[in-house]
Amino acid sequence: MSLPETAPVTEAPGAHFLAEIRAQPQALAGLLEHEADYARVAATAQDRGATIVRMVGHGSSDNAASYGVYAFGLLPRWTAMRDSITLRVYYESGPDLAGSTVIGLSQSGQTQDVIEFVSLARGAGAFTVALTNDPSSALANEAEEVLPLGAGREQAVAATKTYLNQVGALGLLAAHAAGRGGEFADGLRRTAEILEETLPSLERDVRTMALPFASIGRMFVIGRGTEFATAREIALKLLETCRVAAEPLTATDLAHGPVAALDPLFPVWTIASDDEALPAVVDAAARVRGAGATLVASGNAAAKLVDAAYVLPVPKPPLPLLSPLLSVVPGQLFALALAQAKGLDPDSPVGLSKVTLAR
Amino acid sequence: MSLPETAPVTEAPGAHFLAEIRAQPQALAGLLEHEADYARVAATAQDRGATIVRMVGHGSSDNAASYGVYAFGLLPRWTAMRDSITLRVYYESGPDLAGSTVIGLSQSGQTQDVIEFVSLARGAGAFTVALTNDPSSALANEAEEVLPLGAGREQAVAATKTYLNQVGALGLLAAHAAGRGGEFADGLRRTAEILEETLPSLERDVRTMALPFASIGRMFVIGRGTEFATAREIALKLLETCRVAAEPLTATDLAHGPVAALDPLFPVWTIASDDEALPAVVDAAARVRGAGATLVASGNAAAKLVDAAYVLPVPKPPLPLLSPLLSVVPGQLFALALAQAKGLDPDSPVGLSKVTLAR
Repeated sequence: MSLPETAPVTEAPGAHFLAEIRAQPQALAGLLEHEADYARVAATAQDRGATIVRMVGHGSSDNAASYGVYAFGLLPRWTAMRDSITLRVYYESGPDLAGSTVIGLSQSGQTQDVIEFVSLARGAGAFTVALTNDPSSALANEAEEVLPLGAGREQAVAATKTYLNQVGALGLLAAHAAGRGGEFADGLRRTAEILEETLPSLERDVRTMALPFASIGRMFVIGRGTEFATAREIALKLLETCRVAAEPLTATDLAHGPVAALDPLFPVWTIASDDEALPAVVDAAARVRGAGATLVASGNAAAKLVDAAYVLPVPKPPLPLLSPLLSVVPGQLFALALAQAKGLDPDSPVGLSKVTLAR
Repeated sequence: MSLPETAPVTEAPGAHFLAEIRAQPQALAGLLEHEADYARVAATAQDRGATIVRMVGHGSSDNAASYGVYAFGLLPRWTAMRDSITLRVYYESGPDLAGSTVIGLSQSGQTQDVIEFVSLARGAGAFTVALTNDPSSALANEAEEVLPLGAGREQAVAATKTYLNQVGALGLLAAHAAGRGGEFADGLRRTAEILEETLPSLERDVRTMALPFASIGRMFVIGRGTEFATAREIALKLLETCRVAAEPLTATDLAHGPVAALDPLFPVWTIASDDEALPAVVDAAARVRGAGATLVASGNAAAKLVDAAYVLPVPKPPLPLLSPLLSVVPGQLFALALAQAKGLDPDSPVGLSKVTLAR
């Protein structure tokens, strides 16, 4: 195993988490060193007609897969889905997979049922790809192709830079499949620069927000389209590092039931990015305020959300599809600040370890 | 509109909700009156080679679609997915849909972006089907084929019998596609009888549970495989009728982060059914108890979960794929009892109406 378990932490609580959030621009640069691999795998998928993309992963990896649905749907206009692990691995069923590219996502490359899925999918005719931070892992060995994340070793239990690189990786693969790999890679490079420039002010802005949220036990996190992945990932960070029951919802799903649970003690973090889904997000934010709930407005169109108690804007990236790489960062930093305000150590949440072997 | 808005309620809070929960065996019988339609649509999908199933819906309809993924994956072994409405309707993108059956799910047949999705999908070459309780609705008019739910008019804002019939309908369609329609229909009939026999004792059992939960603000609801739909639906009932921040999780996802949020004040409702996914659910329940959280054990294998504070078993249906029709009912009844214990009216939750027009 080339990515060893986290060493005992002697630094301040959250030191690894903060260092890895700050290392994200550098991690994206690490991903781009492997661009040739992404171009090759995209070409192979094209050549084999494997244009139905099935992504499998848990936790942050599954959140990144939510982004992949849009990246493949918008760029090469392929069908992409978060496939059911249970159907194939536990029920031993599901369709023949000729014509499918299966992407197994696992930072460690050790996630047991993802490895089993990839193995079964290969037997069922799929083109199998491992997207992992450890190119010598069991997952990498099981798949026909390996796409390295190149994020560098991650020590905090809560993923940050490997999530960002998974999002960038799926976008890069989709862009190469659409013949737009160069443009997307340039966009990733520029986005990494923007992030580097923005991190210090974001760190400052979230710090003042943490204390008022220290007594909060539940939140919704709302996003739509490409930013639903961001909503899922921010909710997961809050759950695992801050013990907040944070639930991700699409802008529309909020109106189909959950809005009834809102009250002034129930904050809603809303990610608004300047794309075609923005009007639905603006409407959802208005419903949140109508229910008297505290609104946190984030994303590059945060200013479009009326009556927010807190505003955490991020800059616009060169392509709309790159927005999620910036939108997630205020959520990561807020999770760190809130965990510290609550006296929790985000580097080692209770009950979790860096590599999850549970099936 | 043939299904009018709810009339002003003069009965006790939750009277419609309870009446509709009790009417579920009869609603399933109503579905079976339309079996010929399901056989015909399945045959058309086969004839047209439209064997990729794309389901779209919000709220309970989307929860039923989670079941559809397994019904189509296990019976005809077709690929089925909850497709992205945003990708097609807002981003105006996505793949060509020749070879796809699109199922628009909406109780009222009035859900705006589901109608738009079906319209666009038809233009993109899909075989389009409306699954609705109102065969004269806008959704029904937009699709090539209509599959009536036959649940009878639903008046409570929180769906119960229409959810059950959506699950039964997707199973029936999948079974006909696999040449097992008759067997499944017989199973549905028997399941309706079992439900009728079980309802009185279930009503009694949940009532004693409601009071200890009246001060609870957050819960997880865990299921895996076919029962993940049940977990989603029970969580939604608790959100919309009881204002509990209830989040559905698969058994494995719990271990990938959210377990860190658990403590003794954080109950976890776990659905254990006797199928191939049961060992993963048993493991998850053990992790819940390891974190000190209160465990509610439900499903037909509830007795397999060790150290549960509350046990709400349901009988086994004639086919494992029918389990979700029974597993959801204790959750519906518990939501009713808890809402009443909290002084809330589950027939008309704050901020919701029967027909959601939000996009």
